[in-house]
Amino acid sequence: MFLSKLDSLDNALKLIDDNQQLMDVEEIPLDKAHKRVLAEDIIAYHNSPPFDKSAMDGFALKGESTFGASQSQPKTLKIVDAIGAGDFCDKTINEGEAIVIATGAPVPDGADAVLMKEYTTTDGDELTIYSQVTPGENVSPKAEDIKKGDQILSKDTFIRYQEMGLIASAGYDSVKVYKKPNVKLIITGNELVEPTKEEIDKAKIINSNQYTIKAMVEDAGANISISHAGDTFDEVRQEVLKASEEYDVIMTTGGTAISKGDVVLDVVDDLGEILFHGVSIRPGKPIGAGIINGKMIFTFSGQPVAAMSQFDIFARKFLFNMQGRDFDFHIVKRQAQLKIPSQLGRTDFIRAFSDDESARHILNRGSGIIRSMVEANSYIIIDENDEGYQKGDIVDVVFFNSLLW
Amino acid sequence: MFLSKLDSLDNALKLIDDNQQLMDVEEIPLDKAHKRVLAEDIIAYHNSPPFDKSAMDGFALKGESTFGASQSQPKTLKIVDAIGAGDFCDKTINEGEAIVIATGAPVPDGADAVLMKEYTTTDGDELTIYSQVTPGENVSPKAEDIKKGDQILSKDTFIRYQEMGLIASAGYDSVKVYKKPNVKLIITGNELVEPTKEEIDKAKIINSNQYTIKAMVEDAGANISISHAGDTFDEVRQEVLKASEEYDVIMTTGGTAISKGDVVLDVVDDLGEILFHGVSIRPGKPIGAGIINGKMIFTFSGQPVAAMSQFDIFARKFLFNMQGRDFDFHIVKRQAQLKIPSQLGRTDFIRAFSDDESARHILNRGSGIIRSMVEANSYIIIDENDEGYQKGDIVDVVFFNSLLW
Repeated sequence: MFLSKLDSLDNALKLIDDNQQLMDVEEIPLDKAHKRVLAEDIIAYHNSPPFDKSAMDGFALKGESTFGASQSQPKTLKIVDAIGAGDFCDKTINEGEAIVIATGAPVPDGADAVLMKEYTTTDGDELTIYSQVTPGENVSPKAEDIKKGDQILSKDTFIRYQEMGLIASAGYDSVKVYKKPNVKLIITGNELVEPTKEEIDKAKIINSNQYTIKAMVEDAGANISISHAGDTFDEVRQEVLKASEEYDVIMTTGGTAISKGDVVLDVVDDLGEILFHGVSIRPGKPIGAGIINGKMIFTFSGQPVAAMSQFDIFARKFLFNMQGRDFDFHIVKRQAQLKIPSQLGRTDFIRAFSDDESARHILNRGSGIIRSMVEANSYIIIDENDEGYQKGDIVDVVFFNSLLW
Repeated sequence: MFLSKLDSLDNALKLIDDNQQLMDVEEIPLDKAHKRVLAEDIIAYHNSPPFDKSAMDGFALKGESTFGASQSQPKTLKIVDAIGAGDFCDKTINEGEAIVIATGAPVPDGADAVLMKEYTTTDGDELTIYSQVTPGENVSPKAEDIKKGDQILSKDTFIRYQEMGLIASAGYDSVKVYKKPNVKLIITGNELVEPTKEEIDKAKIINSNQYTIKAMVEDAGANISISHAGDTFDEVRQEVLKASEEYDVIMTTGGTAISKGDVVLDVVDDLGEILFHGVSIRPGKPIGAGIINGKMIFTFSGQPVAAMSQFDIFARKFLFNMQGRDFDFHIVKRQAQLKIPSQLGRTDFIRAFSDDESARHILNRGSGIIRSMVEANSYIIIDENDEGYQKGDIVDVVFFNSLLW
C-alpha cells in the first residue's frame, strides 16, 4: 500500500536524475540535423565570408577616391572591370578607379569600399559618383562571421535554424548528434478500446492515452512504438521484458493502483528494481519508476490527466537529458485570479489558463477530465510547503509551450 | 531603384494579408494529426466517461452505508460481487452491501461512492470498513468530461497532445485537417557551393540559406523542396514558373538587389504581379513579394541574417494562416540593457538576448553575420515612429521560441 510511504517530489526527481542516461552518438547529414543536439564541438574549416565580400551591388573602389563627391559636386572615376557573384578579379584597384561589383562578390585588392549603384551614373567606362563612402563601407570583411579554426559551437548545443546555417558555413555537411531515444509505450487495461464512432461495448472506454503520450514523446524529440497488454502479470511481464531488450526507455499506462495487485509495479519488481512508487503530488500520485535491464521504466496512471502530468513532471526531462539537452521548468510569476487551496506536504500541478499577467486555474479538473488540459495552457505549481494562495497572490507558472523540444 | 520607394512595414504586411490563402482540407488518421489544425468541428459520439466510473481501486457501495464508520468504530458490510476494469456488474447494490471494484470499472446501480481499499479489511465476503465516504466520492460521473452530441473542439483548433486525447475520447479515429503547404525554395547565386571541409574555390561561398530556410519552413508546419538556379533571368524564370505550377508557395534567396537587374523581381514581374519590393525595415530591406499563377512568392535576400528576418516578418504568418492557424508576434516588455539607436521611418528587428527581465542587443550584427542570430534568442522591435531607446527603457521583445509552430 504505497499511500503510507509516498516519496517527496524532490526525492523522486533525484532518483531519476541519479539514473539519468545519455544516448550514443551518430553522424547524420546536416539537412537532417534540425532540432537535434550536437555531440561534437564545431570547429570552422573556413573563414566566413572567405574574402572581403561586397554587401551591395555597386562599385568597388578606394573610399578615398570618393571623398568630397556630392549631388552638387560629382566626381568622375574610371571603370576598369566588372565582377559578378562567384567571379573574382585579380586586378588591383588604384586611386580614381572602380569596378562594377555584385553583392556577394570579392572586393578586389586595392579597393576598400563599395559605393551603391543608385549614387552613380555611367557612360561607357566613365563613372560619375554623387556620394562619398568611407573605407570599409558596404564591405563584409573576410572572417567577420566565422574565423577558420575557431570553435563556433560546442557539444550539447541544440540545433535551431540559425545553428543550421552556422554549421553549414563552417563547412560541415554532416554532424555528430545524440541518437533519438526509442521509447516503448505499453498500454495496459482490459477496459480499453480504440476510438470509434459506433456504439461501444458496455464497461469499455476509449483509449486516449496512446494518442496523448505518443504526441508528448514526439514533442520530446524521441521515437515511440506502442503495444497493448491485458491486466495480467504474465502479459505485462512479457511485454515489458521484450521492451527492455529492444528499446531505450519503457513507459506504461494503467495498472499502477492497488486492487489489481499493482500489476505493473509487480512486474518491475520482478524484472528489475523499483526506484519509487507513489509521490506526494497532485495529480499523478501513483507514478512509479524503475530500472529493468539497465533501461528506465516510467509507470504512468491510466487516468489521462494524471498520465500527462506525470509525463511532464518526470519523463520529459529524462528524455531531453538523454539527448544531451538541458531541461528544467521555466517558471514565471503570475498573479492568481482565484483563490487556490492546497495541502501541506504535497506539490500541486494545477491546470491553468495564464496570460502575460495573471493565472486562472481551471475549476473542473478531475484527473480524468481531459477537457481541463485542453482549456489549460499552463500549470500553476504549488510547493509542498505552501497551503495554497489567495486571489491576487503571486504564483509560480509554467507554460505548456515552454515544455516543448 | 527600389530604395526611392520603400513600402512601410504595415503596408507590406497588409498586401500579404490581402492575398492570404487557405489550404484545402484532407482527412488523416488521428495518430498523424498531432500539430495539425482542425478543419472541422469535433462533435462527441460518446459520453466520456461512458458510465459512472470508479476512480479508485476499492469497494463500490452506497455512501450512506459507511456513515459513522471510523478506525475506532468500524462497520461491517457484505461483499456481493467483484468487477475488474472492462467488466460490468448488473446487480443493484443495496444498503449494507459492497462490491470489489477496479479503477476504470463501471459503478453498479445502487452504489454511489467508492471506498478505497486501504481503509478496509476483508474476511471472505465480510468487509470491515474503517472510514466513511460521501456519496459521489471516488466516482467519475458519466459524461463529466465529454457529453455525447456536444461540440468539444471547433474548426481551426491547433492539435496539441491534449487535444489528441480529447478527439480520441470523442470517438474519432480520423480527422479533417488543413493540408500542409508545399513550399518550393529556389536558391539563386552563382557564388554558392555546398558545405565542404575541403578548400573552396576562390570567390565561392558556402550556401547556408538552404539549411536555415528549410528548417524555418519545417518549423512553420510546411513541407519544402529545394532547387538551385544561376543568376540569369532565364534560369530563374524557368524554375519559378515550374514551381508556380507544382507548389503552394514559392520562396527565393538572392538576386533581389539592383545591379544584377533585380533578376528575381524581373521574373516575378514577367510571370505575375509584384506586390511590393523594398520595405523600410532593418535587416531585410530588399524583401519582395508577388503573385504568380495564384501562388505567393517571397523573394528573400541572399544575406543569411536578412533572409531569416524576412522569413520571420513576412512568410511565417502566411504559412501559419494557410493552415488555418492564427499567428501574430507575441510581444513582451523588457528593459533595455544598452542604448539602441534607430532611424525614424524604419522598423528595426534587432537581434537580442533576453531573459525574464531585460533585453541586450547583440552588438556585432551585420546582415551576413549568422553568429549574431545564434547568440540571439529574441528580437527587440523598434517601431518606425521611434528613434531608438536609452538604457533602462522598456522595449518590445519577441522571443524566437514564441515563433514556433
